[in-house]
Amino acid sequence: MGKIFTAGVIGAGRMGKIHIKNILLNIPELKLKLVADIKLDDQLKEWASDMGVPRLTQDANEIFNDPEINIVIIASSTNTHIDFIQEAAQAKKDVFCEKPIGTNINRIKETLEIVKRENIKLMIGFNRRFDRNFKKIREIVASGQIGTPQIIKVTARDPALPPIEYIKGSGGMFIDMTIHDWDMACFQAGSSVKEVYACGAVLVDPEIGKAGDIDTAALIVKLKNGALAMIDNSRQAVYGYDQRVEVFGSKGCAIADNEPTNTVRLYTAEKTKEDNIPYFFLQRYMDSYAEELRSFLDCVQNNKEPSPSGEEALQNVLVAIAAQKSFEENRPVKISEIDL
Amino acid sequence: MGKIFTAGVIGAGRMGKIHIKNILLNIPELKLKLVADIKLDDQLKEWASDMGVPRLTQDANEIFNDPEINIVIIASSTNTHIDFIQEAAQAKKDVFCEKPIGTNINRIKETLEIVKRENIKLMIGFNRRFDRNFKKIREIVASGQIGTPQIIKVTARDPALPPIEYIKGSGGMFIDMTIHDWDMACFQAGSSVKEVYACGAVLVDPEIGKAGDIDTAALIVKLKNGALAMIDNSRQAVYGYDQRVEVFGSKGCAIADNEPTNTVRLYTAEKTKEDNIPYFFLQRYMDSYAEELRSFLDCVQNNKEPSPSGEEALQNVLVAIAAQKSFEENRPVKISEIDL
Amino acid sequence: MGKIFTAGVIGAGRMGKIHIKNILLNIPELKLKLVADIKLDDQLKEWASDMGVPRLTQDANEIFNDPEINIVIIASSTNTHIDFIQEAAQAKKDVFCEKPIGTNINRIKETLEIVKRENIKLMIGFNRRFDRNFKKIREIVASGQIGTPQIIKVTARDPALPPIEYIKGSGGMFIDMTIHDWDMACFQAGSSVKEVYACGAVLVDPEIGKAGDIDTAALIVKLKNGALAMIDNSRQAVYGYDQRVEVFGSKGCAIADNEPTNTVRLYTAEKTKEDNIPYFFLQRYMDSYAEELRSFLDCVQNNKEPSPSGEEALQNVLVAIAAQKSFEENRPVKISEIDL
Amino acid sequence: MGKIFTAGVIGAGRMGKIHIKNILLNIPELKLKLVADIKLDDQLKEWASDMGVPRLTQDANEIFNDPEINIVIIASSTNTHIDFIQEAAQAKKDVFCEKPIGTNINRIKETLEIVKRENIKLMIGFNRRFDRNFKKIREIVASGQIGTPQIIKVTARDPALPPIEYIKGSGGMFIDMTIHDWDMACFQAGSSVKEVYACGAVLVDPEIGKAGDIDTAALIVKLKNGALAMIDNSRQAVYGYDQRVEVFGSKGCAIADNEPTNTVRLYTAEKTKEDNIPYFFLQRYMDSYAEELRSFLDCVQNNKEPSPSGEEALQNVLVAIAAQKSFEENRPVKISEIDL
Repeated sequence: MGKIFTAGVIGAGRMGKIHIKNILLNIPELKLKLVADIKLDDQLKEWASDMGVPRLTQDANEIFNDPEINIVIIASSTNTHIDFIQEAAQAKKDVFCEKPIGTNINRIKETLEIVKRENIKLMIGFNRRFDRNFKKIREIVASGQIGTPQIIKVTARDPALPPIEYIKGSGGMFIDMTIHDWDMACFQAGSSVKEVYACGAVLVDPEIGKAGDIDTAALIVKLKNGALAMIDNSRQAVYGYDQRVEVFGSKGCAIADNEPTNTVRLYTAEKTKEDNIPYFFLQRYMDSYAEELRSFLDCVQNNKEPSPSGEEALQNVLVAIAAQKSFEENRPVKISEIDL
Repeated sequence: MGKIFTAGVIGAGRMGKIHIKNILLNIPELKLKLVADIKLDDQLKEWASDMGVPRLTQDANEIFNDPEINIVIIASSTNTHIDFIQEAAQAKKDVFCEKPIGTNINRIKETLEIVKRENIKLMIGFNRRFDRNFKKIREIVASGQIGTPQIIKVTARDPALPPIEYIKGSGGMFIDMTIHDWDMACFQAGSSVKEVYACGAVLVDPEIGKAGDIDTAALIVKLKNGALAMIDNSRQAVYGYDQRVEVFGSKGCAIADNEPTNTVRLYTAEKTKEDNIPYFFLQRYMDSYAEELRSFLDCVQNNKEPSPSGEEALQNVLVAIAAQKSFEENRPVKISEIDL
Repeated sequence: MGKIFTAGVIGAGRMGKIHIKNILLNIPELKLKLVADIKLDDQLKEWASDMGVPRLTQDANEIFNDPEINIVIIASSTNTHIDFIQEAAQAKKDVFCEKPIGTNINRIKETLEIVKRENIKLMIGFNRRFDRNFKKIREIVASGQIGTPQIIKVTARDPALPPIEYIKGSGGMFIDMTIHDWDMACFQAGSSVKEVYACGAVLVDPEIGKAGDIDTAALIVKLKNGALAMIDNSRQAVYGYDQRVEVFGSKGCAIADNEPTNTVRLYTAEKTKEDNIPYFFLQRYMDSYAEELRSFLDCVQNNKEPSPSGEEALQNVLVAIAAQKSFEENRPVKISEIDL
Repeated sequence: MGKIFTAGVIGAGRMGKIHIKNILLNIPELKLKLVADIKLDDQLKEWASDMGVPRLTQDANEIFNDPEINIVIIASSTNTHIDFIQEAAQAKKDVFCEKPIGTNINRIKETLEIVKRENIKLMIGFNRRFDRNFKKIREIVASGQIGTPQIIKVTARDPALPPIEYIKGSGGMFIDMTIHDWDMACFQAGSSVKEVYACGAVLVDPEIGKAGDIDTAALIVKLKNGALAMIDNSRQAVYGYDQRVEVFGSKGCAIADNEPTNTVRLYTAEKTKEDNIPYFFLQRYMDSYAEELRSFLDCVQNNKEPSPSGEEALQNVLVAIAAQKSFEENRPVKISEIDL
């Protein structure tokens, strides 16, 4: 009853598989028709068969050319995002694309023009906005219960170092990791970034320093609405995947703590103990990936503007460039310096 | 590789649907072949088709007669459990059956004889043992971290009254609701019930009293290993589905609190606030239903003894009868008075 | 400005010292004039001198005969309470007396008659009612925020065994320890006890059993207003002094957890840890002793009826006798069986 | 037995009264002989008499000239600190002085020279280090349990705006309020400040802006040992006096939350609620004032070096000057720029 929505997914790596699984199991209103991946090996074939993926291809064009497919989900490597969004837009298909949208500001802007011209929906995958805890904080802030946001604090620490090869190809800690956090700060405050001061250090592993990157970061981000955001990151929190948000305002404060692994407390003669918070990001954020796809589908079905939008994704990339510059020059950098 | 396990499900009501969904989505090693339900209406047909149930029937015998089916899951009405277990056992199929196994002690014993004779596996669905929090407490207790259990406390309160018609057919609060709680106490202590003292009262709704039942209960259960268990129940906890367990022992204490709806705390000039705990039992226990099926499959695959076993289920029913007698006569009642 | 209140304290043991210290340091409106203790040794003299106690005596009569003293605080051994209350009452002095008021029902009743006839104030020291947490729960209950109380849970566990000599002279676990807990249940519910079912066991130390006492207790107490109270006690909770109260009602539930030693949580690769709750009862209840004296002084100053009153203290002793009988006969015992 | 320590207190305002009360009630080993205050009015005389202060004077010289007094406690107005420390030192008396030690760097250095030359003990009152929670974190850090500190977070928010007159005379938010927080960061990390970047804003009350000050602050402080500290302040947290510390390191993380007003949680159909955290700084920090005096006395008695030392206090003032400069010029400022 009503229009049928049919999806093609480009990229069946870790993120692609998450989206495929969510479509098949958790979003019955969205039909999966085709999955494209340039590395179409036996392992992927077997996985797809087990999951009930209808068809696989190596050629993303099959997705763009299939008139039945009206939704394209892009989860391929970052350097392909821009091209695939443009092709999907030109094929008049709505697009959900993993973050980041890209790294070249001019090409992102060009892409947003095409998206606008072709009048398609574009949403970028900043999934943490859809985490039940952070979404709840946003609801509290948006309802006015804490008044005007004044200080926003985001803590995001990974449980363990990624392989050094990953670091080398990541584009640096700010665009790879911190980008989620100013997105969160802007989302919570309902504003965008005016200026950023970014500190970084190599405190975890000297190999990361040799690779030209940092493993620890602390930032102060001034938002356009006057609020001050503070972000701290580490590549290695040995006790688990530490993800917290706090919004302090004129009428109160809302704080989201980590999700517990279980609610059991053990009292012995030595200490009171609990299990650690989860280590794996999927334990924490799995539900948020389904939620973001549901939100996207809702926008497509009901002609709403998706958020995080392409414009927000562009802003996030601009902040990443400013943060990197701030770190290198050890001074606060305005977004207007970057976005000429 | 290895034997294929194929299931037939009898009963596609609320519990049956949960098991069907879990087999299809969460337990890939178990193949669903057939679902039997005496009420095979269009609604069920549509649901089954959407879910991908291969075939439906009105006749449970089709399940017993299908040589390919080696696992039978019984989720039909309580009064059919005994017959279906016996038939499945005689057809040499392993059985997972919803609680309670039955209400007639002699027929339960007869059934356990058949189960033993036919050498099949039988597990009864006391799913709360598989809740991540309560399972964690059991692991702590079993590992000796809190020493010898001395006091066990179980709180189980429903968020809202069921329809009065449900109450009338429930067999009474003890066998309908509290049965989960002494099962939990025994599970945690690794023991069984010796004597029970049960208090009850009608404090929520006089209609429940008119229907011959109670809505509030407090019990002291003496276990064979000397531990004292305390259970409290209410049919109506307006703040949510309140499910907590505490085990106190010679070397410590382990306490499982309710699961939070989210981790957000809101601080305002008036109060510090959180969202209520979940109201719906499926929010709390959904994962435990998949866990119990996985545990059952593991027992079948690896020739382990399932737990909760048929014998444990029988004990639980004996305690229910003793509790009812205790309440009616206002005195502690030994299980040996009931189980002659 | 206004009448001056001058106190004499009988008994300078552990409890007496607490009251003396509170009068001197925390209750400036109450003047301490005289302390009587039959064991007037050098150690006590030195302590009194350091604290600034104006005068010491061995003879309690000096207190009764001093016309300036209008408040008598009795903290001598239990078997002297009744006599001292009667003497103080006959001397027209208001009395604060440590719990229990006594053990002989007839003598307690006789004493309450004298108290009434002489028209003095009498308050008995069930200090836990003045703990900030339990007092807060009572305020919540009294304000109607949780509706009608239905289930009341009191957990009281000592951190370590007292000397076996103490046990022998204690009168038994129920009157020595549990008496605080049904007092708490009655206080919270605003009702009194109708019937009690008491279980006990020797699970901690067989020596306690040899001394004719128990070390673990579980009780269900039916209150006159229909609420069910559940109490559990242990003589040894190795993780600290465990004192919790929960009141569940028709509109909600109020729960007081233990006080933390500090608010620090330590997250490491192994576990999340906290310091244990305090081990020593004075860490938990010190403030409550000052609060109860302030409450008593307020009653005296403003002609209010003190609570816990002598009548409440009598009820508490009746419950202790009923609990002991219930435990010995393994059956619920009504207070009306005891209070003929 | 042993040397007697006798104190004179200069200044009997809010802080002076706290110290006097602590000496009289909580630190029996320290004898109070004389209190000097230039405003010796009837109100102070009455208060001193009630408290048992032996003698009052308007002339601080009486303290310096009294050979029996060997400890001077300075709690007079900030602009007198330097002079009084110097006079006390020259009189060979050990000194505890309220923070800040002063505002003129040269005069502070000159004073520290005199302190060194006269070989007296000097401790400055950064009392929060003696808060049971923050002290516990320091113990954890110092014991190596969280490894090398990498990120330190300090949140300090006042519950309500001070009078605008107070703001005008405060020297600005950084030296008045934030000075506690980098002291805390340095204390926790066992290091000192290398560089500071300070942001400030007027988000609470425009009157504060008109007075040339800010009411909201966010800082990143780079410590010499490489750790990054983040501090946030507000003059108005409507939900209470918000004081939290977090130290994240290579092996774990220690977090001190606010102290609760009580441990009661209220569950109703609408929400789960708690009482707010305390509003008043004395509710939170009262114990810490006695602890710091005890620590000082211990240093004097046992010839230990007091901490927070005069040198640490000097560093704290240098950071305040750097923070103010950083805020005014919107750039990170090194301490070496200030301390030429």
